[in-house]
Amino acid sequence: MRIPASLERLVAALARLPGIGEKTATRLAFYILREPEEYAATLSESVMGARMGIALCPQCHHITEEGLCNICRDTTRDDSIICVIEGIPDLMALEATGHFRGRFHVLHGSLSPLKGVGPEDLMLESLVVRMGTAPVQEIIAATSVGVEGEATALYIKRLAQPFDVKVTRIAQGIPMGGDLEYMDQVTLARALEGRREL
Amino acid sequence: MRIPASLERLVAALARLPGIGEKTATRLAFYILREPEEYAATLSESVMGARMGIALCPQCHHITEEGLCNICRDTTRDDSIICVIEGIPDLMALEATGHFRGRFHVLHGSLSPLKGVGPEDLMLESLVVRMGTAPVQEIIAATSVGVEGEATALYIKRLAQPFDVKVTRIAQGIPMGGDLEYMDQVTLARALEGRREL
Repeated sequence: MRIPASLERLVAALARLPGIGEKTATRLAFYILREPEEYAATLSESVMGARMGIALCPQCHHITEEGLCNICRDTTRDDSIICVIEGIPDLMALEATGHFRGRFHVLHGSLSPLKGVGPEDLMLESLVVRMGTAPVQEIIAATSVGVEGEATALYIKRLAQPFDVKVTRIAQGIPMGGDLEYMDQVTLARALEGRREL
Repeated sequence: MRIPASLERLVAALARLPGIGEKTATRLAFYILREPEEYAATLSESVMGARMGIALCPQCHHITEEGLCNICRDTTRDDSIICVIEGIPDLMALEATGHFRGRFHVLHGSLSPLKGVGPEDLMLESLVVRMGTAPVQEIIAATSVGVEGEATALYIKRLAQPFDVKVTRIAQGIPMGGDLEYMDQVTLARALEGRREL
Protein backbone atom coordinates (compact mmCIF):
# COMPACT_ATOMS: atom_id res chain seq x y z
CA MET A 1 0.00 0.00 0.00
CA ARG A 2 1.04 3.59 -0.62
CA ILE A 3 2.33 5.54 2.35
CA PRO A 4 2.50 9.36 2.23
CA ALA A 5 5.72 10.71 0.71
CA SER A 6 6.54 12.77 3.79
CA LEU A 7 6.38 9.63 5.94
CA GLU A 8 8.53 7.74 3.47
CA ARG A 9 11.15 10.48 3.70
CA LEU A 10 11.12 10.35 7.50
CA VAL A 11 11.49 6.55 7.53
CA ALA A 12 14.40 6.79 5.07
CA ALA A 13 16.14 9.47 7.18
CA LEU A 14 15.71 7.46 10.40
CA ALA A 15 16.87 4.24 8.72
CA ARG A 16 20.25 5.87 7.98
CA LEU A 17 21.01 5.91 11.72
CA PRO A 18 23.38 3.11 12.79
CA GLY A 19 21.60 0.00 14.05
CA ILE A 20 18.18 1.22 12.89
CA GLY A 21 16.67 -0.93 10.14
CA GLU A 22 13.64 -0.04 8.07
CA LYS A 23 11.25 -1.82 10.41
CA THR A 24 12.49 0.02 13.49
CA ALA A 25 12.57 3.29 11.53
CA THR A 26 8.89 2.80 10.63
CA ARG A 27 8.02 2.17 14.28
CA LEU A 28 9.91 5.31 15.36
CA ALA A 29 8.23 7.37 12.62
CA PHE A 30 4.75 6.32 13.79
CA TYR A 31 5.72 7.22 17.33
CA ILE A 32 6.72 10.71 16.15
CA LEU A 33 3.37 11.05 14.34
CA ARG A 34 1.35 10.03 17.38
CA GLU A 35 3.17 12.22 19.92
CA PRO A 36 2.11 15.85 20.42
CA GLU A 37 3.49 18.25 17.81
CA GLU A 38 5.77 19.72 20.47
CA TYR A 39 7.91 16.57 20.47
CA ALA A 40 8.51 16.63 16.70
CA ALA A 41 9.50 20.29 17.02
CA THR A 42 11.93 19.56 19.87
CA LEU A 43 13.51 16.63 18.04
CA SER A 44 13.80 18.53 14.79
CA GLU A 45 15.35 21.59 16.41
CA SER A 46 17.74 19.63 18.61
CA VAL A 47 19.12 17.73 15.61
CA MET A 48 20.03 20.96 13.83
CA GLY A 49 21.00 22.74 17.06
CA ALA A 50 23.55 20.08 17.93
CA ARG A 51 24.84 19.66 14.38
CA MET A 52 25.36 23.39 13.86
CA GLY A 53 26.46 24.25 17.41
CA ILE A 54 29.06 21.54 17.87
CA ALA A 55 32.39 21.21 16.10
CA LEU A 56 35.36 18.89 16.53
CA CYS A 57 38.39 20.19 18.45
CA PRO A 58 41.12 20.92 15.87
CA GLN A 59 43.74 19.33 18.16
CA CYS A 60 42.21 16.18 19.68
CA HIS A 61 38.95 15.92 17.66
CA HIS A 62 36.80 15.78 20.77
CA ILE A 63 33.52 17.71 20.49
CA THR A 64 33.57 21.40 21.33
CA GLU A 65 31.23 24.32 20.95
CA GLU A 66 34.02 26.64 19.79
CA GLY A 67 37.79 26.40 19.22
CA LEU A 68 39.84 23.99 21.37
CA CYS A 69 37.78 21.60 23.51
CA ASN A 70 37.58 21.92 27.29
CA ILE A 71 40.16 19.15 27.81
CA CYS A 72 42.74 20.69 25.46
CA ARG A 73 42.14 24.10 27.09
CA ASP A 74 42.62 22.73 30.62
CA THR A 75 46.12 23.91 31.63
CA THR A 76 46.26 21.62 34.68
CA ARG A 77 46.44 18.43 32.62
CA ASP A 78 49.57 16.43 31.83
CA ASP A 79 50.93 17.22 28.34
CA SER A 80 53.37 14.31 28.31
CA ILE A 81 50.79 11.59 27.83
CA ILE A 82 48.11 11.15 25.15
CA CYS A 83 45.39 8.54 25.40
CA VAL A 84 44.19 7.50 21.91
CA ILE A 85 40.60 6.26 21.69
CA GLU A 86 38.25 5.27 18.89
CA GLY A 87 35.29 7.45 19.76
CA ILE A 88 33.96 10.18 22.00
CA PRO A 89 31.90 7.76 24.15
CA ASP A 90 35.23 6.03 25.00
CA LEU A 91 36.70 9.37 26.02
CA MET A 92 33.71 10.08 28.22
CA ALA A 93 33.89 6.67 29.87
CA LEU A 94 37.60 7.19 30.67
CA GLU A 95 36.98 10.74 31.94
CA ALA A 96 34.21 9.45 34.20
CA THR A 97 36.75 7.26 36.04
CA GLY A 98 38.71 10.37 37.06
CA HIS A 99 41.90 8.27 36.76
CA PHE A 100 43.44 9.96 33.76
CA ARG A 101 44.81 13.50 33.80
CA GLY A 102 46.64 13.50 30.45
CA ARG A 103 45.39 14.51 27.02
CA PHE A 104 43.19 12.61 24.59
CA HIS A 105 43.15 11.98 20.86
CA VAL A 106 39.94 10.73 19.20
CA LEU A 107 40.49 8.66 16.04
CA HIS A 108 36.78 8.54 15.12
CA GLY A 109 36.90 4.90 14.13
CA SER A 110 39.25 1.93 13.92
CA LEU A 111 41.07 0.26 11.04
CA SER A 112 38.81 -2.21 9.28
CA PRO A 113 39.70 -3.41 5.78
CA LEU A 114 36.41 -5.34 5.70
CA LYS A 115 34.37 -2.17 6.23
CA GLY A 116 36.69 -0.21 3.94
CA VAL A 117 38.13 1.91 6.75
CA GLY A 118 41.79 2.66 6.06
CA PRO A 119 44.34 4.85 7.92
CA GLU A 120 43.32 7.88 5.83
CA ASP A 121 39.78 7.65 7.26
CA LEU A 122 40.99 8.04 10.85
CA MET A 123 42.41 11.10 12.61
CA LEU A 124 45.95 9.74 12.42
CA GLU A 125 47.78 12.50 10.58
CA SER A 126 47.14 14.97 13.39
CA LEU A 127 48.23 12.29 15.89
CA VAL A 128 51.61 12.02 14.14
CA VAL A 129 51.97 15.82 14.35
CA ARG A 130 51.26 15.64 18.10
CA MET A 131 53.77 12.78 18.58
CA GLY A 132 56.48 15.05 17.22
CA THR A 133 55.81 17.92 19.63
CA ALA A 134 58.18 18.30 22.58
CA PRO A 135 56.31 17.31 25.75
CA VAL A 136 54.75 14.05 24.51
CA GLN A 137 56.47 11.01 26.04
CA GLU A 138 53.79 8.33 26.04
CA ILE A 139 50.89 7.31 23.81
CA ILE A 140 48.34 4.97 25.37
CA ALA A 141 46.62 2.95 22.64
CA ALA A 142 43.23 2.62 24.29
CA THR A 143 41.47 1.32 21.20
CA SER A 144 38.96 -1.48 21.71
CA VAL A 145 40.01 -5.06 22.42
CA GLY A 146 39.29 -7.06 19.30
CA VAL A 147 40.66 -7.52 15.81
CA GLU A 148 40.09 -3.92 14.63
CA GLY A 149 41.23 -2.25 17.84
CA GLU A 150 44.38 -4.39 17.97
CA ALA A 151 45.21 -3.61 14.34
CA THR A 152 44.74 0.09 15.04
CA ALA A 153 46.97 -0.10 18.14
CA LEU A 154 49.74 -1.82 16.14
CA TYR A 155 49.44 0.80 13.41
CA ILE A 156 49.85 3.57 15.99
CA LYS A 157 52.96 1.78 17.33
CA ARG A 158 54.42 1.82 13.81
CA LEU A 159 53.60 5.52 13.34
CA ALA A 160 55.41 6.31 16.58
CA GLN A 161 58.71 4.63 15.60
CA PRO A 162 60.40 7.78 14.18
CA PHE A 163 59.66 9.65 17.42
CA ASP A 164 61.01 9.41 20.93
CA VAL A 165 57.70 8.27 22.43
CA LYS A 166 56.68 5.11 24.22
CA VAL A 167 53.48 3.41 23.00
CA THR A 168 51.55 1.45 25.64
CA ARG A 169 48.40 -0.64 25.41
CA ILE A 170 45.57 -0.75 27.96
CA ALA A 171 45.56 -3.95 30.05
CA GLN A 172 43.48 -6.94 29.06
CA GLY A 173 42.08 -9.42 31.56
CA ILE A 174 39.10 -10.38 33.66
CA PRO A 175 36.65 -7.48 34.17
CA MET A 176 35.22 -6.59 37.59
CA GLY A 177 32.65 -9.17 38.65
CA GLY A 178 33.82 -11.50 35.89
CA ASP A 179 33.52 -15.20 36.56
CA LEU A 180 36.54 -17.17 35.28
CA GLU A 181 34.23 -20.02 34.43
CA TYR A 182 32.38 -17.92 31.84
CA MET A 183 35.36 -16.07 30.31
CA ASP A 184 36.45 -16.85 26.77
CA GLN A 185 39.84 -18.51 26.20
CA VAL A 186 41.51 -15.43 24.74
CA THR A 187 40.60 -13.32 27.77
CA LEU A 188 41.84 -16.02 30.14
CA ALA A 189 45.10 -16.39 28.22
CA ARG A 190 45.64 -12.60 28.25
CA ALA A 191 44.82 -12.44 31.95
CA LEU A 192 47.48 -15.09 32.66
CA GLU A 193 50.06 -13.41 30.42
CA GLY A 194 49.48 -10.06 32.08
CA ARG A 195 49.68 -11.35 35.67
CA ARG A 196 51.43 -9.17 38.23
CA GLU A 197 53.09 -9.89 41.55
CA LEU A 198 50.79 -9.28 44.53
CA MET B 1 32.46 15.27 32.23
CA ARG B 2 30.38 18.12 30.84
CA ILE B 3 28.87 17.65 27.40
CA PRO B 4 27.61 20.64 25.41
CA ALA B 5 24.01 21.63 26.21
CA SER B 6 22.91 21.29 22.57
CA LEU B 7 24.18 17.69 22.52
CA GLU B 8 22.44 16.95 25.82
CA ARG B 9 19.18 18.21 24.34
CA LEU B 10 19.60 16.02 21.26
CA VAL B 11 20.34 12.93 23.37
CA ALA B 12 17.27 13.64 25.54
CA ALA B 13 15.04 14.06 22.47
CA LEU B 14 16.30 10.83 20.88
CA ALA B 15 15.98 8.92 24.17
CA ARG B 16 12.23 9.61 24.17
CA LEU B 17 11.82 7.36 21.13
CA PRO B 18 10.47 3.89 22.01
CA GLY B 19 13.17 1.27 22.53
CA ILE B 20 15.97 3.86 22.51
CA GLY B 21 17.79 4.16 25.83
CA GLU B 22 20.22 6.87 26.79
CA LYS B 23 23.23 4.87 25.62
CA THR B 24 21.79 4.23 22.16
CA ALA B 25 20.61 7.84 21.98
CA THR B 26 24.17 9.02 22.65
CA ARG B 27 25.51 6.76 19.90
CA LEU B 28 22.90 8.06 17.45
CA ALA B 29 23.67 11.66 18.42
CA PHE B 30 27.39 11.22 17.71
CA TYR B 31 26.52 9.68 14.38
CA ILE B 32 24.46 12.76 13.51
CA LEU B 33 27.38 14.98 14.53
CA ARG B 34 29.88 13.08 12.41
CA GLU B 35 27.74 12.87 9.25
CA PRO B 36 27.74 15.74 6.72
CA GLU B 37 25.50 18.67 7.66
CA GLU B 38 23.14 17.67 4.85
CA TYR B 39 22.03 14.60 6.80
CA ALA B 40 21.09 16.56 9.92
CA ALA B 41 19.11 18.97 7.72
CA THR B 42 17.26 16.09 5.98
CA LEU B 43 16.45 14.36 9.26
CA SER B 44 15.32 17.56 10.94
CA GLU B 45 13.11 18.60 8.02
CA SER B 46 11.58 15.17 7.51
CA VAL B 47 10.55 14.96 11.18
CA MET B 48 8.60 18.22 10.92
CA GLY B 49 7.45 17.52 7.37
CA ALA B 50 5.86 14.22 8.35
CA ARG B 51 4.44 15.50 11.63
CA MET B 52 2.82 18.54 10.03
CA GLY B 53 1.84 16.94 6.73
CA ILE B 54 0.17 13.82 8.07
CA ALA B 55 -3.10 13.60 9.99
CA LEU B 56 -5.24 10.69 11.16
CA CYS B 57 -8.33 9.77 9.15
CA PRO B 58 -11.40 11.00 11.10
CA GLN B 59 -13.21 7.73 10.34
CA CYS B 60 -10.71 4.86 10.70
CA HIS B 61 -7.69 6.71 12.23
CA HIS B 62 -5.31 5.49 9.55
CA ILE B 63 -2.78 8.11 8.41
CA THR B 64 -3.80 10.49 5.68
CA GLU B 65 -2.46 13.67 4.16
CA GLU B 66 -5.89 15.31 4.07
CA GLY B 67 -9.47 14.35 4.99
CA LEU B 68 -10.53 10.70 4.75
CA CYS B 69 -7.69 8.22 4.13
CA ASN B 70 -7.27 6.43 0.81
CA ILE B 71 -8.87 3.24 2.16
CA CYS B 72 -12.00 5.01 3.47
CA ARG B 73 -12.24 6.94 0.18
CA ASP B 74 -12.02 3.75 -1.92
CA THR B 75 -15.60 3.11 -3.10
CA THR B 76 -14.80 -0.41 -4.34
CA ARG B 77 -14.27 -1.82 -0.84
CA ASP B 78 -16.75 -3.84 1.21
CA ASP B 79 -18.55 -1.67 3.77
CA SER B 80 -20.07 -4.62 5.64
CA ILE B 81 -16.85 -5.74 7.32
CA ILE B 82 -14.42 -3.81 9.53
CA CYS B 83 -11.03 -5.20 10.54
CA VAL B 84 -9.90 -3.72 13.87
CA ILE B 85 -6.13 -3.54 14.42
CA GLU B 86 -3.85 -2.08 17.07
CA GLY B 87 -1.57 -0.01 14.87
CA ILE B 88 -0.88 1.27 11.38
CA PRO B 89 1.96 -1.23 10.77
CA ASP B 90 -0.64 -4.01 11.33
CA LEU B 91 -2.92 -2.40 8.76
CA MET B 92 -0.07 -2.20 6.27
CA ALA B 93 0.87 -5.85 6.82
CA LEU B 94 -2.73 -6.96 6.21
CA GLU B 95 -3.07 -4.72 3.14
CA ALA B 96 0.13 -6.19 1.74
CA THR B 97 -1.49 -9.65 1.66
CA GLY B 98 -4.17 -8.37 -0.73
CA HIS B 99 -6.63 -10.75 0.98
CA PHE B 100 -8.86 -8.19 2.65
CA ARG B 101 -11.16 -5.83 0.79
CA GLY B 102 -13.22 -4.51 3.70
CA ARG B 103 -12.60 -1.43 5.87
CA PHE B 104 -10.19 -0.93 8.74
CA HIS B 105 -10.30 0.66 12.17
CA VAL B 106 -7.02 1.53 13.93
CA LEU B 107 -7.22 1.53 17.74
CA HIS B 108 -3.73 3.03 18.24
CA GLY B 109 -2.91 0.70 21.09
CA SER B 110 -4.30 -2.18 23.12
CA LEU B 111 -5.80 -2.39 26.60
CA SER B 112 -3.10 -2.67 29.22
CA PRO B 113 -3.92 -1.90 32.86
CA LEU B 114 -0.22 -2.41 33.70
CA LYS B 115 0.84 0.36 31.30
CA GLY B 116 -2.15 2.47 32.32
CA VAL B 117 -3.87 2.13 28.95
CA GLY B 118 -7.65 2.03 29.44
CA PRO B 119 -10.53 1.98 26.91
CA GLU B 120 -10.62 5.80 26.87
CA ASP B 121 -7.05 5.84 25.49
CA LEU B 122 -7.99 3.80 22.42
CA MET B 123 -10.08 4.80 19.39
CA LEU B 124 -13.08 2.81 20.63
CA GLU B 125 -15.79 5.46 20.78
CA SER B 126 -15.64 6.00 17.03
CA LEU B 127 -15.68 2.20 16.54
CA VAL B 128 -18.98 2.00 18.45
CA VAL B 129 -20.39 4.72 16.19
CA ARG B 130 -19.34 2.71 13.13
CA MET B 131 -20.84 -0.51 14.57
CA GLY B 132 -24.21 1.24 14.66
CA THR B 133 -24.18 2.29 11.01
CA ALA B 134 -26.28 0.29 8.59
CA PRO B 135 -23.97 -1.73 6.34
CA VAL B 136 -21.63 -3.12 9.04
CA GLN B 137 -22.26 -6.83 9.63
CA GLU B 138 -18.93 -8.15 10.88
CA ILE B 139 -16.09 -6.86 13.03
CA ILE B 140 -12.82 -8.81 12.81
CA ALA B 141 -10.85 -8.38 16.04
CA ALA B 142 -7.36 -8.58 14.54
CA THR B 143 -5.59 -7.35 17.66
CA SER B 144 -2.34 -9.10 18.57
CA VAL B 145 -2.25 -12.58 20.07
CA GLY B 146 -1.26 -12.20 23.70
CA VAL B 147 -2.75 -10.98 26.96
CA GLU B 148 -3.33 -7.37 25.86
CA GLY B 149 -4.62 -8.21 22.40
CA GLU B 150 -7.01 -10.85 23.78
CA ALA B 151 -8.36 -8.45 26.41
CA THR B 152 -8.91 -5.83 23.72
CA ALA B 153 -10.71 -8.33 21.48
CA LEU B 154 -13.03 -9.36 24.33
CA TYR B 155 -13.73 -5.70 25.11
CA ILE B 156 -14.71 -5.11 21.47
CA LYS B 157 -17.02 -8.14 21.63
CA ARG B 158 -18.74 -6.55 24.66
CA LEU B 159 -19.08 -3.19 22.93
CA ALA B 160 -20.75 -4.90 19.97
CA GLN B 161 -23.48 -6.59 22.02
CA PRO B 162 -26.15 -3.85 21.57
CA PHE B 163 -25.68 -4.00 17.81
CA ASP B 164 -26.57 -6.52 15.19
CA VAL B 165 -22.95 -7.28 14.24
CA LYS B 166 -20.90 -10.47 14.44
CA VAL B 167 -17.48 -10.18 16.09
CA THR B 168 -14.84 -12.64 14.82
CA ARG B 169 -11.24 -13.23 15.92
CA ILE B 170 -8.29 -13.92 13.60
CA ALA B 171 -7.19 -17.57 13.66
CA GLN B 172 -4.41 -18.74 15.96
CA GLY B 173 -2.16 -21.67 15.13
CA ILE B 174 1.18 -22.71 13.70
CA PRO B 175 2.70 -20.03 11.44
CA MET B 176 4.13 -20.85 7.98
CA GLY B 177 7.42 -22.67 8.32
CA GLY B 178 6.72 -23.31 11.99
CA ASP B 179 8.16 -26.45 13.48
CA LEU B 180 5.74 -28.14 15.90
CA GLU B 181 8.69 -29.21 17.98
CA TYR B 182 9.59 -25.61 18.78
CA MET B 183 6.09 -24.18 19.30
CA ASP B 184 4.92 -23.15 22.75
CA GLN B 185 2.13 -25.10 24.43
CA VAL B 186 -0.50 -22.39 24.07
CA THR B 187 0.05 -22.16 20.32
CA LEU B 188 -0.13 -25.95 19.98
CA ALA B 189 -3.32 -26.11 22.06
CA ARG B 190 -4.92 -23.35 19.96
CA ALA B 191 -3.85 -25.06 16.74
CA LEU B 192 -5.55 -28.28 17.87
CA GLU B 193 -8.69 -26.46 19.02
CA GLY B 194 -8.95 -24.62 15.72
CA ARG B 195 -8.44 -27.70 13.49
CA ARG B 196 -10.48 -27.92 10.32
CA GLU B 197 -11.56 -30.83 8.13
CA LEU B 198 -9.28 -31.35 5.15
